[in-house]
Amino acid sequence: MAGAEQIVVAGAAATKFGRRPELEIAELGVEAARAALADAGFEPADVDAIYVGTFLAQSLNRQGVPASLIANLLDLGPVPATTLEGACASGTIALRHGILAVRAGSARVVLCVGVEQMTGAATEAVTGALGEAFRRDPDQEAGLTFPGFFGLVADAHGARYGTGREELTAVATKNRAHGATNPRAMFAEAVDAERVETSRLIADPLRVFDCSPIADGAAAAVVCRESDAPRRSRAIRVLACEQASGPVSTIDAGEDLTSFVATRAAAAAAYATADVKPADLDVVEVHDCFTIAEIVDCEDLGILPRGEAGPAIVAGATRIAGGEPVVNPSGGLLSRGHPVGATGLAQVHGLVAQLRDEAENQVPGARLALSHNLGGTGAAATVTVLAS
Amino acid sequence: MAGAEQIVVAGAAATKFGRRPELEIAELGVEAARAALADAGFEPADVDAIYVGTFLAQSLNRQGVPASLIANLLDLGPVPATTLEGACASGTIALRHGILAVRAGSARVVLCVGVEQMTGAATEAVTGALGEAFRRDPDQEAGLTFPGFFGLVADAHGARYGTGREELTAVATKNRAHGATNPRAMFAEAVDAERVETSRLIADPLRVFDCSPIADGAAAAVVCRESDAPRRSRAIRVLACEQASGPVSTIDAGEDLTSFVATRAAAAAAYATADVKPADLDVVEVHDCFTIAEIVDCEDLGILPRGEAGPAIVAGATRIAGGEPVVNPSGGLLSRGHPVGATGLAQVHGLVAQLRDEAENQVPGARLALSHNLGGTGAAATVTVLAS
Repeated sequence: MAGAEQIVVAGAAATKFGRRPELEIAELGVEAARAALADAGFEPADVDAIYVGTFLAQSLNRQGVPASLIANLLDLGPVPATTLEGACASGTIALRHGILAVRAGSARVVLCVGVEQMTGAATEAVTGALGEAFRRDPDQEAGLTFPGFFGLVADAHGARYGTGREELTAVATKNRAHGATNPRAMFAEAVDAERVETSRLIADPLRVFDCSPIADGAAAAVVCRESDAPRRSRAIRVLACEQASGPVSTIDAGEDLTSFVATRAAAAAAYATADVKPADLDVVEVHDCFTIAEIVDCEDLGILPRGEAGPAIVAGATRIAGGEPVVNPSGGLLSRGHPVGATGLAQVHGLVAQLRDEAENQVPGARLALSHNLGGTGAAATVTVLAS
Repeated sequence: MAGAEQIVVAGAAATKFGRRPELEIAELGVEAARAALADAGFEPADVDAIYVGTFLAQSLNRQGVPASLIANLLDLGPVPATTLEGACASGTIALRHGILAVRAGSARVVLCVGVEQMTGAATEAVTGALGEAFRRDPDQEAGLTFPGFFGLVADAHGARYGTGREELTAVATKNRAHGATNPRAMFAEAVDAERVETSRLIADPLRVFDCSPIADGAAAAVVCRESDAPRRSRAIRVLACEQASGPVSTIDAGEDLTSFVATRAAAAAAYATADVKPADLDVVEVHDCFTIAEIVDCEDLGILPRGEAGPAIVAGATRIAGGEPVVNPSGGLLSRGHPVGATGLAQVHGLVAQLRDEAENQVPGARLALSHNLGGTGAAATVTVLAS
């Protein structure tokens, strides 16, 4: 998606992630949207399209037209309002379509919102709804869950590359240490290896601290052409925002569980479009829905060599102090919480702060950033490259 | 959405609408997709993005990533696969985003699919799931249903303009007469006024024959630049494909129920982009989810004068023989059935056949066509203008 004129994120924002069951889901989205518009220097009347990424709004909140409802509550008038879904990648799929609408000339200023509200529902209902990202037969009917699936990924990666408890723990302790200073994180508290390794087993080998928590939250970004951004010095350039798909059904299909084709395809397209390589990156947010996912993500993105990401993370290769690049300085999904549709835009919000040199956990001199958002069992992935 | 090079529908197809509960929802989509690709002269390997419009796939079919699953089943490789929702307008929202992707330069050939599978679920489950197009508080909690909402629309239109039983019946008998020759219609059978007027009362004043039936079905269209269409003489030009939003909550907000702002806004944009006026149109498919909706649609689209659509339809102004324009020659949703996400693309498929001069119910010499797809209580609407 290269183009004649540069597209930018003119402003971004995220709510604190955590428990907000008292709000209507659209109200959560409105909170992030207003903050993103204010950050950009736009008024609601400036917006001429809205994209909303959410996965569970129908299943958990009985709200099927959240984009129109958020547009109503913001008093945007009859602008095109579109709800998009790509499981846990829904937020950045909304961002990508905002960018496409600007690029296609159908909109000048687009509001992109990611939102999810999960804590008001019973755990069984949430588990069931998340299972809609699997194929019904055989995956759902076999009782597959996300911890179960990523437990299988950990087993497969362990069998092939020797990845085990030490490597998983290193991801958990790094991200929780990074997240300790993130005021919007659900769990802003460091944990030590012993606490991780003695925590409750969820789906062998994954324990509680290997899993990102369900949460309520919203994040938003406003995109436009660079020349339309009211606060041009704070606008962040979008060098690429690419999306790819992969298998929905995995347990019966002989898929390789140590890598996600959607991530690899989106990354290849994004690096080509942005004309950058992994070694150029200063700071990265990857989709660590589980500790093992961060290991796979770093390999699929070419940030760390295939099969060597675990030991490299143990050695500190992606830590805030000295990481090249630093991975998940926000604390990632493991600290921030994972309100599914909001996650991708929260990653982007964190990277916008990094590239403006105003993040809580600032990577000194960060100029080039990448975010990676994964949906389902790799059914969808997006890779976004941002630059100051 | 005007642009340097003409975008076309290179091919289109629809399944027969009716009862197909034995299939997985994605398989229904695949059936329409393969037929549309064959109609266009493309192979699956030519496709570089897929958009799927559906509203109830999660709530009724527990399938949250249908776009990725359809891409898997068609063996498209890791192309971007995006699921979009806009209640009953989901199908044409998918079409619009396929066009935007081509226009933005991010894809060359895009497969747009609309699909819904509703007959496998209990009626109460379908009614509940459709209610997700309303706001939760107060509309859902007050027990609003779609027949109830459009009953209120009929009452409001009747109070203001005198629209009553005779006008509603005229829509039902016209559309069922038109649909009698449509091989893909769920109810390809004409009905007379007496049968309409003695049918079961659903939501006063609406009776069974005032309501479109729930159904299973899929429709698809392939879009690309005109120069990329393999069968250029059969490609249909997209002069405009515009989308707008409107109020989600209506029963407590003092909204005018005799007109939908989303339709008016989408139509104004579409007429301006296409540089045509209602009087230029030869053939139109409007969203007659209920008989009263066709009356309101014709007024909102400027096809018939405000407040006079009912009497004009009684007088035969939009009938296949002599209508200017002919409205719903396919039989509309009332005959075809209304598998929510599929409807918009089924309308487009019908108009593509008209503009190729090969429709079952051909409007002689049809050169300019318009489709109108309405979502929810007017939360979303699209207007598409096509030309041979």
